[in-house]
Amino acid sequence: MAIGELGTYPHATGAAAAVVSKHEEAQDLVFWSGWFCPYVQRAWIVLEERGIPYQYKEVNPYKKEQHFLDINPKGLVPAVEYKGRALYESLVICEFLEEAYPEHKPSLLPSDPVERAYARIWIDFIAKSVIPAFMRLMMTQEPDKQQEALGEFVKALATLAEKIQGPFFLGEQFSLVDVAVAPWIMRDYVIAENRGFHREAVGPKWKQYAETIEARDSVKSVMSEREKYADIYARYLKNEANSVAGIAFRAGRPLQ
Amino acid sequence: MAIGELGTYPHATGAAAAVVSKHEEAQDLVFWSGWFCPYVQRAWIVLEERGIPYQYKEVNPYKKEQHFLDINPKGLVPAVEYKGRALYESLVICEFLEEAYPEHKPSLLPSDPVERAYARIWIDFIAKSVIPAFMRLMMTQEPDKQQEALGEFVKALATLAEKIQGPFFLGEQFSLVDVAVAPWIMRDYVIAENRGFHREAVGPKWKQYAETIEARDSVKSVMSEREKYADIYARYLKNEANSVAGIAFRAGRPLQ
Ligand SMILES: N[C@@H](CCC(=O)N[C@@H](CS)C(=O)NCC(=O)O)C(=O)O
Ligand SMILES: N[C@@H](CCC(=O)N[C@@H](CS)C(=O)NCC(=O)O)C(=O)O
Repeated sequence: MAIGELGTYPHATGAAAAVVSKHEEAQDLVFWSGWFCPYVQRAWIVLEERGIPYQYKEVNPYKKEQHFLDINPKGLVPAVEYKGRALYESLVICEFLEEAYPEHKPSLLPSDPVERAYARIWIDFIAKSVIPAFMRLMMTQEPDKQQEALGEFVKALATLAEKIQGPFFLGEQFSLVDVAVAPWIMRDYVIAENRGFHREAVGPKWKQYAETIEARDSVKSVMSEREKYADIYARYLKNEANSVAGIAFRAGRPLQ
Repeated sequence: MAIGELGTYPHATGAAAAVVSKHEEAQDLVFWSGWFCPYVQRAWIVLEERGIPYQYKEVNPYKKEQHFLDINPKGLVPAVEYKGRALYESLVICEFLEEAYPEHKPSLLPSDPVERAYARIWIDFIAKSVIPAFMRLMMTQEPDKQQEALGEFVKALATLAEKIQGPFFLGEQFSLVDVAVAPWIMRDYVIAENRGFHREAVGPKWKQYAETIEARDSVKSVMSEREKYADIYARYLKNEANSVAGIAFRAGRPLQ
């Protein structure tokens, strides 16, 4: 494990720090977070969006400390403990929060079974196509392969964009589809500054959607100061990250 | 597209053919199937297990015919049409069937939110660890890499096996976790005969579980005659499959 990952800045800053400071008290739900992590931010956006009471705990997942491995044997954030039971995987946690806190509005999944399934199809698309393309674009080093990766990323976003009903993915209501992609919208400046990505290249519909998502209070509230992310992304951009994702990429294995 | 995929045997045989013949009438739910497909079998097991009325339609997904691409733009089976709306992705369909047919018992997800989330964590593990390891083991050609892939597959199953409560994954009730892995249990003879896999290598708990799963009526009912799968798997074993999965494997890309 490189010193980089272990030396990741230790806590949230900016807007996210203000949110953390309001969630120090013990609650039934303990939220194990790494402030910098896009998967964490999915669950965090849901917690904030729906006003669910939670206790925030910062953990450095790269340290793989035993107390955390006991909660998530995969050693990844986010994880939650709910009345003593441990749960992990960001999308599983988002659905869990829907089901465990039905009285907290808004619900982020439609109530109709067909509409729910439709939302899950696109959440699955984000997981299988958008995020892997983002990671590939960031970590690929050879210029021609970067061009190819950029094309694939833009194409994945265009496929998603085509289905945006506006202003949010499913229409008037902000939903788990928006949550699933929001953290990568908030990070697209990394590939804009380093890999020639432009929102405009996807099309005007995507640009407008991305702006709507990044203006959402719950989304903004889980972001730290931009410069604090810089050395994490510097390692990905050089393909030197020793995170589970960085290692998987170099081994040609799927994201976990 | 190689002739192999296009020439896939055109319809179900054996136990599965008997089931197909009972599902020819029009219904609200149209089930677009490829008889040979393990992902199809997940949704099919749920339909059979819960006695949901459906109309069976066989499609050769390798042909990418427009009428099917209109249903699933990814061009993959399974897909369903429900009152005119198209849905796809096997796990999305399984959850959809839970939600759209609550009166059809047994429910295959626990009612408690924590237990449901726990089930989804292990379904996700099957998708991210068990199935990719199975595919890798089948398609890898170099003997030393095959040994490595075998080790990884056995390890993934052992991780799952450790959590089996017995007789089913979650205990007394057959659930979507069992459904998610069942089709690969039904196919493990392919890697037993060709790659040196033994259920015993995972441990006695796994062996017993696998036998319980393959004895389940709903699971048996969606299987065709074993020899009909042979030429499909022959192509995977030579790493010559031109399916989406075969192409993704050779390109070092995740399964779709
Ligand atoms: N599939 C997981 C991915 C979570 C993940 O990859 N988290 C990263 C931080 S962004 C982590 O904990 N990494 C620890 C490591 O790489 O060792 C989810 O959706 O929650
Ligand atoms: N993730 C999909 C995978 C479905 C899939 O890969 N189906 C294969 C048959 S087993 C298919 O339709 N392949 C068509 C092709 O490879 O062109 C699911 O879970 O439904």
